[in-house]
Formats: sequence, C-alpha cells, structure tokens
Amino acid sequence: MRILLIGAGGVGDALAKIAARRDFFDHLVVADYDLTRAQRTVAAIADRHGDTVAARFTAARIDASDADAVAALAREHRATHVMNAVEPAFVPTVFAGALAAGADYLDMAMSLSTPHPTDPHTQTGVMLGEQQFAAHDEWVTAGRLALVGMGVEPGLSDVFARYACDELFDTVDELGTRDGANLVVRDENGDEMFAPSFSIWTTIEECLNPPVVWERDRGWFTTPPFSEPETFVFPEGIGPVECVNVEHEEVLLMPRWLDARRVTFKYGLGAEFIGVLQTLHTLGLDATEPIRVRSADGPVSVSPRDVVAAALPDPATIGPVMTGKTCAGMWVTGTKDGAAREVYLYHVSDNEWTMREYGTQCVVWQTALGPVIALELLATGAWSGVGVLGPEAFEASPFLELMARPESEGGYGQPWGMREGPG
Amino acid sequence: MRILLIGAGGVGDALAKIAARRDFFDHLVVADYDLTRAQRTVAAIADRHGDTVAARFTAARIDASDADAVAALAREHRATHVMNAVEPAFVPTVFAGALAAGADYLDMAMSLSTPHPTDPHTQTGVMLGEQQFAAHDEWVTAGRLALVGMGVEPGLSDVFARYACDELFDTVDELGTRDGANLVVRDENGDEMFAPSFSIWTTIEECLNPPVVWERDRGWFTTPPFSEPETFVFPEGIGPVECVNVEHEEVLLMPRWLDARRVTFKYGLGAEFIGVLQTLHTLGLDATEPIRVRSADGPVSVSPRDVVAAALPDPATIGPVMTGKTCAGMWVTGTKDGAAREVYLYHVSDNEWTMREYGTQCVVWQTALGPVIALELLATGAWSGVGVLGPEAFEASPFLELMARPESEGGYGQPWGMREGPG
Repeated sequence: MRILLIGAGGVGDALAKIAARRDFFDHLVVADYDLTRAQRTVAAIADRHGDTVAARFTAARIDASDADAVAALAREHRATHVMNAVEPAFVPTVFAGALAAGADYLDMAMSLSTPHPTDPHTQTGVMLGEQQFAAHDEWVTAGRLALVGMGVEPGLSDVFARYACDELFDTVDELGTRDGANLVVRDENGDEMFAPSFSIWTTIEECLNPPVVWERDRGWFTTPPFSEPETFVFPEGIGPVECVNVEHEEVLLMPRWLDARRVTFKYGLGAEFIGVLQTLHTLGLDATEPIRVRSADGPVSVSPRDVVAAALPDPATIGPVMTGKTCAGMWVTGTKDGAAREVYLYHVSDNEWTMREYGTQCVVWQTALGPVIALELLATGAWSGVGVLGPEAFEASPFLELMARPESEGGYGQPWGMREGPG
Repeated sequence: MRILLIGAGGVGDALAKIAARRDFFDHLVVADYDLTRAQRTVAAIADRHGDTVAARFTAARIDASDADAVAALAREHRATHVMNAVEPAFVPTVFAGALAAGADYLDMAMSLSTPHPTDPHTQTGVMLGEQQFAAHDEWVTAGRLALVGMGVEPGLSDVFARYACDELFDTVDELGTRDGANLVVRDENGDEMFAPSFSIWTTIEECLNPPVVWERDRGWFTTPPFSEPETFVFPEGIGPVECVNVEHEEVLLMPRWLDARRVTFKYGLGAEFIGVLQTLHTLGLDATEPIRVRSADGPVSVSPRDVVAAALPDPATIGPVMTGKTCAGMWVTGTKDGAAREVYLYHVSDNEWTMREYGTQCVVWQTALGPVIALELLATGAWSGVGVLGPEAFEASPFLELMARPESEGGYGQPWGMREGPG
C-alpha cells in the first residue's frame, strides 16, 4: 500500500503520526499547499521515530483545488490510496484526481451541500455527499473504492451504528450521533480563551447550514440551524452538555445501509459558541465568496471565512494550552428480545494523553485515528469493496477489535465504551 | 476660502452635499483613495444643483496615509483649509500635510490612543488627540489653525458644552455627552438586519478601547470597556436607551477650556451591538495589524478589522432602507443662581428627512453638518484662532444661531433643543 495524504493541517499531521507507528503500508507522501507544513510533519516523525521510520515518508507540495495536480502527484508516487485530509471544499477535486489516477480514495468529510433555494429550513437542496454518491457507478466500473466519511464523526460513529444494528438490537428506532467535550484553552495568564479545537471553516459550514434529519416515513428533511436543543450526559466525567442538530454526514450515510426509523446528529456546541457562530453569520463573516478588502498592497480579494480562520489560533497548535476530553459516540434506541433498549457507544480522547503520546491535540487526533485503522483493514484485506461506500457498509467488528486491542498485541490500544440505559 | 476635503465616504460625501447649498467658499476639492467615490459625490451635486454649482467642486485621488501627497494636493489646489473626513488612523498624515502646505485644518476625530501597557483599565496610555495637542506650538508659530474634533460628537457636543458653561450655569458638575438613536435597517423582506449606521472601523476603535473619564481631582483615567451602564431617555420619541462609557474626544477636549467637576461620554449602543463588539474582540477580528490569509491569488496580508468593515453594508448606502432618528447631545448638571440645574442640549436628525433633502443617511449627515458651519464661521471671521483648538475654544452662540436660523434667512435650518430637568 502506497498512500498519498493530501493535507498536513491538524488532522493530516496527526494521521501521519499515527501511521508512523504502523507497518501495514510501504510509503506515505504528506502533501500540502504549504510545503513547509508537510515537511514539519515528516521532521516530527523523524525526531520521534528515527530515520528508518521517516524514510517511509515524503513531503510534497499540492494544490488540492486542482484535480489534475492531484492525479499527477498520485501517479508520480504510484499511490494505491489517496487519503483526503483537507477541508471539504476540496473534496470534488481530490475525489476526481484519485479516480483519474486509478487509486482508491478515503475522506473524513464529504462534498458540500447547497441549501434549498426557497425553503432551506424544511427541504434539502443539494445534499452533503450527493456529488460523490452520484459517481458510485463510475467507481464500480473502474473497480476502485471510495470509502467516504471515514474519520471519527463521520467514521467511528458509523462503525458504532453498524455494530449496534448487527449485534445489539433487533429493531432500531433512532441512530443519534452525539458529540460533546469539556475542553478548555487558556492563555499565558491562565485566562480561558476562545480557540475552537477543530477547523473553524468546517465548523461554520456544519453549524450554519440547515441541519438535516432522516426519518423512514419522510426521507431527508432540514430544520433551522441549532434546532431541537437537548442536554446529553457524556461519560468519563465530561457530564451534561447542550447539544443541537447540525448538518453532518452520518445522517446522509446511515440510511443507505442501516435500518432505523430516524437518524440524527447533535453537536455539543454550548451557548457561547452558538452565540459566536450566530454573530459571524449576522455580520456576513461566515461567507466563503471573496470580498474586496483594502490592504497595504492595494485592494485584495479574500473570503471572510478564511479571514476568521486565519485570525483564530490554528487548532493544530492549541494542544499544549488545552485541557479536557472529547467524546464521540452513537446513541441508539430500539428493541432487543422484545424489550426496549438504549445504548451509547463511545470513544473518549484525553488531550493530556494525545499530547504526551503524539504531540497532537485530542480532537484532531481522534479524527485521524479512524482512517488509519480503515487503511490497515484495507491493506490486510479485512475490509474490501468497490464504489462509493460509507463505513457502515463494512463489518464493524474487525474495526472495533483492532482499535481496542492493546498496542503490545498489535492493536491501537484505544478501548471504546458502551453505556446501557439513559445517561 | 478653498477647501481640500480628504475622504468621500459617508461623511465626506454628506459634507460636500451640505456645502453645495452654501456660498461662503470659492472651491472644494473632493479627494479620495478611490477616485470613483469622489467623482460620484461631485456627480450627485451636479445632478441636484446643476453645472454652475458643480463647477465649484473637483474630484481628485489621494493617499491619505502619505503626508507629502496631502501637502502636494493642497498646494496644487491652493487650499486654504484641509478638511479631514477619513478614518482617524490617517489623522497624523493629513494633519501634518495641511501644516506643511500652510493650510488651516479641521477634523471630526482625533489622533488615536494607545492603551496603558500594564494597567489599561485604570490608567491612560497615549491619549486620544495627544499627538495633535503636542503640535500646538508649531501651529501657533506657523500662524495656522487646527480646529480638531469638529463633527457632531465631538463637535456640536462641545459647542453645546461651551454654551452651557457660558449661558446656563454658574457652576458645572458634569458635562456628559449622551448619544442615542432608534434607527432600524431592514432587508428586502422587511426583516431587521445588522448594519451599523457609522464606520464600523471607528466604532470598534471607540468602543473596545478603554473608555476615558476626566475628574477635577483625578485628571484623566480609564475604565474597562462598556462600564457604568445607564438608561438615558432621549427626546423626540427615541425614548430610553442603554448607554455605556466609550472613549471619545469630548473627554479630552472639554477640560482644556471648560470648568467642570467631571466629563464623560456615553454611547447608546444597546445590548445586541455590545455583544457583537465583544465577539469580534474575542475572535481577534477587531485587530488592525495585518494577518496572512490565503486567497485565489496566493497569500495576502489584510487587517481583520478592514475585512469586517468590507463585509458589512457601507454605512453610506443604508439610508434608503433605514428608518428612525439619531440624537446627539450634551447633558449638563450644576447650579444656576444657587439652585441645582439639569439640562440636556440636543440635536435630532431624522433619516427620512436627510434622505429626502440630501440623499444621505442621518448619522453621517449629522456628523457632516458641524464642520460646514464651522468652515462658514471661519470664512466670515466670526470664528478665528491659531494653534490646535477644540470647538469649545470658540464662542458657541454664533454657531448655534447660524445652525438654527431658517434656510430662507441664510441659516442651516437646523433647530436644536433644550430639555430642563431629568428626562
């Protein structure tokens, strides 16, 4: 297996570092628009693991908005797998570039949605991932696999959903991804500061788009942003967090392979963060269309959302000043043996541990874990397929077993939890 | 009198349009960094008043950040007065350029402050206007006048303060500028939208800098932003508005010429606007230092605050979709003939009227009124002086009389109000 990793931001960097401890691949090219970022990732691997391990890694420059450039770089390095770790705006070009180069493809976020033109808070427009699912036949014909939405959420959440459907329930009522954290970032004076732990670009996209919900009788439909607030109690000391509906891939993936009455995604944003996102929207600072702005070099065109991202601390750099845990998980209700059942399947990532073990903050580290495990399952043949498939199209047990098995026994040493009954 | 007006934004445009109805000057050059903005102002004057009036106006391009360019343009047009209508960041260069060209100078906002390095919420650092007052002797030696802070606030507020001290009080306790409005901007669907009626750049500067207060026993000192909230009842149907301390020129100007125990400035921001400003600050989007941002043309350097300003509707353009009134005024407490007295002197500007009469929204129109009246008083010799002087250094009665006198009798037709006692 030869992997072309596109993107050396927080998640791409963590992904390379997790892969550096594994033997299942022959070579991994870390490519970024900013070559120095890619080089920094490879240098960090050399520092920690020595030159022999680092010899399996190469840094390269790539413009992810150019499908031909992606294909050319994939061919140049004879990549068997293109691993997409850039923002979802670049999904179409990386996805097309991989297919053109005859490589398999994985991503952690899917092609973006476009709201319904007249009724955005009730009806779907172009749906998340729709562009990719439309290419399913093309990928089947080429005999290639596009494993889409294979991060933590979507990704591990979908694996949990498949596991619940296969092993824990006879009938499923709701498949509800629930994500929450108790992370705090402090400045040099010890004061709490505003520093999102994940790409603000993607967070704005997720949270300000109309949330999508799926119901068996109704299909996909949308609601206004921040709808149906609920307090969900997260495990391992995180406790109660206010969660709201957010547009997310799980809702588009799960109904294609799993049988449930309702599929939802709720994100534990908290009141302060919701307020910030609403203000950005009110001011038009969430916009991605470039606007003209004066500068010392004369007028320039920039996207306001890119400016917001550039003004905030890079999520990849806040690990050392952050404390707390993040929890990704799948809350499932339904029946087993004729009785009602409620289960929360989850994985908790502790920032102190990820910083010590990988020099990476916990949210991006947790996102990067799933795709490495998936790549390993594809390398060993435990998982295989062709076409555009979500994580729930594959058997869940091999994934969860490899993830939980101790490192000393060849696993990833990442146990997951299961809570029975209400939290 | 030959006027070089620097800046054809909302206020500069309104200033030229008000001047177009007056005969006291020979020529007015409208200069802007963006020549098309200056040309638009002159074209609007030609449309409304015909070519004879428009012949007294010329459009020009200027880089206000270059003092030599300001001086060269002033000399080229033999300007006797340089009228500064650009953002306060450019005060030092326009101020220096005017002096170099041997012209008198007026502005509506003063050189910017720098917070105290270690104790910003108690002690002043470099104060608003300090750079300009430091040049007083130079201007006196040159025999030239710099009339600073001559808009509406500062400007008309200072004229009111001088009037109160001269005519209405024996002893003054507090000179408190109080500004409030009931303006609403609606989008095409009739929904209220966020669209500040004044330069967001300047508003951020004013509101996020530590507010400054003056007391006879203590001198100038600062407080945390948004301190000492009070509900002030504004006249003419505007009603109660929550006001907070804001850094403003009046507090720096009045104690130099007027005798009071305390000088304050409170702005009726309202809770929503305070929330927006606090969020911008939390996210670092109020910063003026350029940051690197990606763009279609490669990385560029832009100031986040410039991006916020560019993302919002131009305050000069919202007049047609705005309704309501804005009130600028001076609340004075003290004694007269041995009895306690409380007075609010004010001027209200109604957007419907300014739009109909001038095609300009009311807040920028009200700001532009004072400097035109001041220029006329300087042209007629009713006001004269040398050095760096505030509006309260001049007799108030000629100003207030000319402002209130009907247009049919050669005045500006802008009556002002006086409310006795608490509102």
